[in-house]
Amino acid sequence: MATQFFSKRNLQFLLYEVFNAESLTQYEYYQDHARETFDMVLDSAEQIAEKLLKPLLTEMDRKEPQLVDGKIRIHEGMFPILKKFGEDGWINAGFSYDEGGQQIPSTILNSAAFIFQAANYSASVFPFLTSGAANLIRSFGSEALKNTYTPNMYAGVWQGTMALTEPDAGSSLSDISTTAEHTENEGVFKIKGQKIYISAGDHDGCENVIHLMLAKIKGGPAGAKGISLFVVPQKRIDNSQSIIHHSQLIDNDVITAGVYHKMGYKGAPIAHLMVGSNDNTFGYLVGEPHKGLTYMFQMMNEARIGVGMNATAIGTAAYYASLEYAKERPQGRIISDKDITKPQVQIIRHADVKRMLLFQKAVVEGSLSLLIQCSMYADLAHVTEGEERENYHLLLDLLTPIAKSYPSEMCCLTTSAAVQILGGAGYTTDFPVEQFYREARIHPIHEGTTAIHGLDLLGRKILIKNGKSLQLLIAEILKTLEKANQFKNLKPFVQKLQHYLGKTDSVTRHLLGLASKDLEIFLSDATLYLELFGIMTIAWQWLVQGIKAEETLQAGTSGDEANFYQGKIFTLRYFYEYELVKIDALMKRLLSEDNVTVEMKAEWF
Amino acid sequence: MATQFFSKRNLQFLLYEVFNAESLTQYEYYQDHARETFDMVLDSAEQIAEKLLKPLLTEMDRKEPQLVDGKIRIHEGMFPILKKFGEDGWINAGFSYDEGGQQIPSTILNSAAFIFQAANYSASVFPFLTSGAANLIRSFGSEALKNTYTPNMYAGVWQGTMALTEPDAGSSLSDISTTAEHTENEGVFKIKGQKIYISAGDHDGCENVIHLMLAKIKGGPAGAKGISLFVVPQKRIDNSQSIIHHSQLIDNDVITAGVYHKMGYKGAPIAHLMVGSNDNTFGYLVGEPHKGLTYMFQMMNEARIGVGMNATAIGTAAYYASLEYAKERPQGRIISDKDITKPQVQIIRHADVKRMLLFQKAVVEGSLSLLIQCSMYADLAHVTEGEERENYHLLLDLLTPIAKSYPSEMCCLTTSAAVQILGGAGYTTDFPVEQFYREARIHPIHEGTTAIHGLDLLGRKILIKNGKSLQLLIAEILKTLEKANQFKNLKPFVQKLQHYLGKTDSVTRHLLGLASKDLEIFLSDATLYLELFGIMTIAWQWLVQGIKAEETLQAGTSGDEANFYQGKIFTLRYFYEYELVKIDALMKRLLSEDNVTVEMKAEWF
Repeated sequence: MATQFFSKRNLQFLLYEVFNAESLTQYEYYQDHARETFDMVLDSAEQIAEKLLKPLLTEMDRKEPQLVDGKIRIHEGMFPILKKFGEDGWINAGFSYDEGGQQIPSTILNSAAFIFQAANYSASVFPFLTSGAANLIRSFGSEALKNTYTPNMYAGVWQGTMALTEPDAGSSLSDISTTAEHTENEGVFKIKGQKIYISAGDHDGCENVIHLMLAKIKGGPAGAKGISLFVVPQKRIDNSQSIIHHSQLIDNDVITAGVYHKMGYKGAPIAHLMVGSNDNTFGYLVGEPHKGLTYMFQMMNEARIGVGMNATAIGTAAYYASLEYAKERPQGRIISDKDITKPQVQIIRHADVKRMLLFQKAVVEGSLSLLIQCSMYADLAHVTEGEERENYHLLLDLLTPIAKSYPSEMCCLTTSAAVQILGGAGYTTDFPVEQFYREARIHPIHEGTTAIHGLDLLGRKILIKNGKSLQLLIAEILKTLEKANQFKNLKPFVQKLQHYLGKTDSVTRHLLGLASKDLEIFLSDATLYLELFGIMTIAWQWLVQGIKAEETLQAGTSGDEANFYQGKIFTLRYFYEYELVKIDALMKRLLSEDNVTVEMKAEWF
Repeated sequence: MATQFFSKRNLQFLLYEVFNAESLTQYEYYQDHARETFDMVLDSAEQIAEKLLKPLLTEMDRKEPQLVDGKIRIHEGMFPILKKFGEDGWINAGFSYDEGGQQIPSTILNSAAFIFQAANYSASVFPFLTSGAANLIRSFGSEALKNTYTPNMYAGVWQGTMALTEPDAGSSLSDISTTAEHTENEGVFKIKGQKIYISAGDHDGCENVIHLMLAKIKGGPAGAKGISLFVVPQKRIDNSQSIIHHSQLIDNDVITAGVYHKMGYKGAPIAHLMVGSNDNTFGYLVGEPHKGLTYMFQMMNEARIGVGMNATAIGTAAYYASLEYAKERPQGRIISDKDITKPQVQIIRHADVKRMLLFQKAVVEGSLSLLIQCSMYADLAHVTEGEERENYHLLLDLLTPIAKSYPSEMCCLTTSAAVQILGGAGYTTDFPVEQFYREARIHPIHEGTTAIHGLDLLGRKILIKNGKSLQLLIAEILKTLEKANQFKNLKPFVQKLQHYLGKTDSVTRHLLGLASKDLEIFLSDATLYLELFGIMTIAWQWLVQGIKAEETLQAGTSGDEANFYQGKIFTLRYFYEYELVKIDALMKRLLSEDNVTVEMKAEWF
C-alpha cells in the first residue's frame, strides 16, 4: 500500500509562499490566528487522516453500507471517526465564536478537508455534509431552529444532509414534486415526497439525521420560484417539551427505502428516502417561503469547491501511489541502452512514465492551487466590504464552475494514468489505484454535472454585470503575467499564456455573438467552452506557482528544497507543452459553424 | 437493463456494403462460403449471445471466481456456455478443413466475437484463448503435439492459455526467468518458474488446461533470443499409454497459487501459477528452440486485433445502454423554450447529450470499421500470394498497434460518456454502464500497454522496409480521398483529411529526423504519435463509411434505412468537427523542442 497520500510541502508552498494565507490574520475576524494556529489545524487533520481514515480506505470499499430492517448500517470503523470529528470541533470550526465556532478561514479548513479526502474520501464526507447543512440553518434559519438543531449537529451526534434530488428531478431541480402543506403552527409544514441519492441520508453512526430539504409549498408559484427550504429531521422533537432529551425525539416518518450500491465511493451511505408516506412528516421552514433555491445556491459555491477538492484529493492519492510504484518497480531498460545483460531500470526512468506522472502532478497541483485561490477569495469576501467584497464574490462565482469541473473531469484521467503506470497490477485490487479510479468518477456527476457547469459559466457567469467577473479575472491574470515577465526563464510562458488569453477572448466574443441569434446553438458546446476556460485557468495557476518557484531558485536553495522548486518549474513546462495546447483543438471546434450536435436527430442514432 | 447491445444493421453495413466481405468467396480457400453462410455464423453468434451470455453479464461481475482448495471456481453459468462453444465448433471454425475446421474468414469470426464480447466480455474470452493457443500448436507444433492436444481443445474440453507474464517480466518479456531443462526425451523439458496474470489459467469448467508458455532453455542465449515456446499442460499424458483416456492424465505440477481480484472483467479467472515447484513439470517444445517470441508474435496481431475488438464491443454495449436511457429519460427543457408549465423533454433532445452519444458512436463504429478493415487484410493475406500477400501483411502489421490501442484508450472515455449520460443512475449498480466503465479499463494494459504500441508504431512499424507499410497505407487513404471527392457533400471532409494527412507526414518526418540524433528523445512521445496516427486512421475509416452512406442516400432511400445513413453522415461530421481537430494540439507538442519528460528527474517529483 502507498504510504504517502498528499504532500505537506506542497500545501505549505501554496498556502504560505504562493497565496500568503497568513495575510488573512490582518483582518479583525481572523486576528486571533497566526501561521501557528493554521499549522496546528493542518497537523491535527494529518494525524486523524493517517491514524483513523487511511487504515479504513480499502475496508470501507469492500464492506459497503447495507440496509437492514429499515436502517442503513455503515462500517463500524466510522463510529469513532464521527465521534472524533464532532469532539474536535471540525463541523463548526469555520463558524463565528458566537456560534461556538473558531473562525478558522475556509482556506485552512478546505486544506484540512483535502487531507481527509486524500486519505479516505468516503469517510471524509460525513462531517462536511453536516457542516453544510448546519451552515444553511445558521445563515437563514430562525433562532428557534438554530437553537434546536445546530448544537447536536456541531457535536457530530446528528448528521446533516442536503436533500434536493428526486426521481424526476435531478439536473432539473425546478421540477421537484415534494410538497409542503401548511399546518396550524406557523413555519411548520407537512412534507410529502421522495428524495434520492441523499448522501449520508440515514446511518447507524448518528442519533438523528437533519435533512435540509427542498419542497414546494402547495399553492405557490410553479418551477424554481416555488421552491422552499425546510429542516426535515428524521426524528422530530416532541413539541410538548422545551428541553431536548433523546427520549423526546419521536419518529418523523422519513423512511429509508433503499441504499444505493455504487461503482466507488462505497463507504458513504447514499439513501433513497420516502417522506410523509404515513402523512406524518413535519418540516420546518428555513427563512422565507419560495426562497429555497436562492438559499441553497448561496451555499452551493462552497459545496462545489468541496467537490473540486474531493476530486483533487483522490487524484493526489493516486498520484503518490503511482509515483511510489514507479520509483520501486524495475522493468525494461532505457531506450538508448538496451543491453540485456544489465539489470532492469526503475520505470520512473522511462519518458512515457514520467509523462504520465507529470500529467498527474500538473493536474492535481494546478487544481489545488486554483482551489486555494478560490478559498482565499471566499475568505476575503467574508472580511472585506463594499466593492472589494463584491469583486471577490464575482471572482469566486465565475471560477466556481471551473474549480468544480476541471478537477472532477481531469482526475478521472489522472487516476487512469495512475492505473496505467502500475499496468496489470493497477487493475487488481492488490493496489489502491483501481479504487481511486472508481471513486474519481462520481465527481463530474454530483453537485451539478459538467454540462450544467458549462451552461452556468457560458450562459450565466460570464454575462453577469456586463461581464465584470470576466474583466476582474483577466485583470488578475494580467497581474500575474506582468510579475512573471520580470523573470527571463518565465518569459516563454508569459508569451504563451498571453496568446491563449487572446484566443479565449476571441472565442468568447464569437460565442456571445451567437447568443442573440440562436440560444441553443450559443450554448450547444458550453461543455467545451468550460474545458477551454479550465485549461486557461490552470495554466494561469501554474504561472502563479512558477513565479514563486523561480524567485526562490534564483535566491538560491539546495537539496530537497531545490528539487521541490525544480519539480514546479518542470511541471509548469509540462502543462504548457502538453495541456495548454489542447486549446487549439477546442478553439477550432468552438469557432466552427457546423452545428452537428444541434441538428442531429434522435432517430438517426 | 439495456436490451440492445450491438447493431446488426451496422455490422451488415460494414461487412457487405463497405468492405464487401463476400468478395472473399472468390478465393479457393473460402469458395464454399457465401453471404448466407456468413449470416448463419453471425445469427448463431447472436442467439448464443442473447440467450446464454447476456443474462449472465451482471451475475458474473457480482460473483467472482474464487480459489478453493487449489482450484479456481468460476460462475457455474459458464459451464453450459463452454460446452456450447466447443460443440458448435467455434474454437476451430477458422482453421482448415484438414484440421477439422470450417475455413470461416477472420472477418466473419471477428464479427461473431464482437457480438459475444458486447454481450458479456468475461464469458467471451474462454474459447478465444483456447483458439489462440491451439493456433500456435497447429502452426508451429509437431504432428504429435497437434494430435495429442488440439482435439480436446477444439472440443472445448481443454482450456488453452498464453502464459507469458512473470512477476519480473511484464512489458519487458525478454527478462522472463522461467527455465526449461532438457530431459532424456527429445523435445521434452523440465519447466520451473512462475507465471502471473494468466487468463483462464485454471478453472473448474474444463478438464485440463494447456498453457502455451514462454521459458528459457538453460544454456541458451540471453534476452529475447533465448526464449522458447512450450506446451505445458496442467495435467500431462502418461507416456506409457498411446491412447488418451482421462484416467491417463496425471498431475503436471502446475499449481494455482492465486486468483486475481480485479476492478472489472471479473467473470474471467486470472491466475497466478507456480510451475515445477516440486520439480515435476514437463513441457513440450513447440517448433525450434529459441524461437518462442517469434512464434508468439506471429499470433500476436490476431490477439491484438482481438483486444481492440473487445474494447469496441464493450464501448458498443455502453453506447446502446446510454442511448436507450437518453431516449426514455425526461429531464429539463430545451434551451430555447424553458416554459416550466410544459412537460420535461427526453434528454436526447439536449445538444450536449447528443454530443456524448455522437462521441460514442463515432469511436465505436469507427473502431469497428478499422477492425473489420484489418480482418479483411488478414484474410486477404491468407489467400493471396507474392507481393500482394506481403502488402496485406505490411498493412496489417502497421495498423495493428492502432487497431489495438485506439479502441482500448478511447473506449475508456466512451464508457465514461455513457456513465455521464445516465448521471447519478450511471454511477449505481442498478444500470450496466458502470460495469462497462470498469471492464473497458483493462484494454490499454493487456496485450501490450499503449506505450508499448506507441514504441512499436514509431520505433519499428513505420521504419519497416524503408517505410513501405506507411506508403501502402497512404496509397489506400488516397484511394479513399479520390473516391470521396466525387461526392459534393464529401468534399469538405476530403480537404480536411488531406490537410491532416500532410500534417501527419511532416510530424513523421520531424520525428524520424530525431532518430539519428537521440533515440530517447525520438521515442519519448511515441504514445502521442500513436494517438495522432489513430485519429487520422479513424478519420479515414469514417470517410470510407461516408462514401457508401452518401452513395446510398443519393440513390434514394427512406424510413429507417434513410435514418441509418443520415446517422452515418452526421457521425462523420461529428468526427471531423470534434475529434480530428485534436491533431492540432498533438502536432504542436510533437513538433516542439522542449524535451521536458526526458529531462525530468525522479527526485524532482
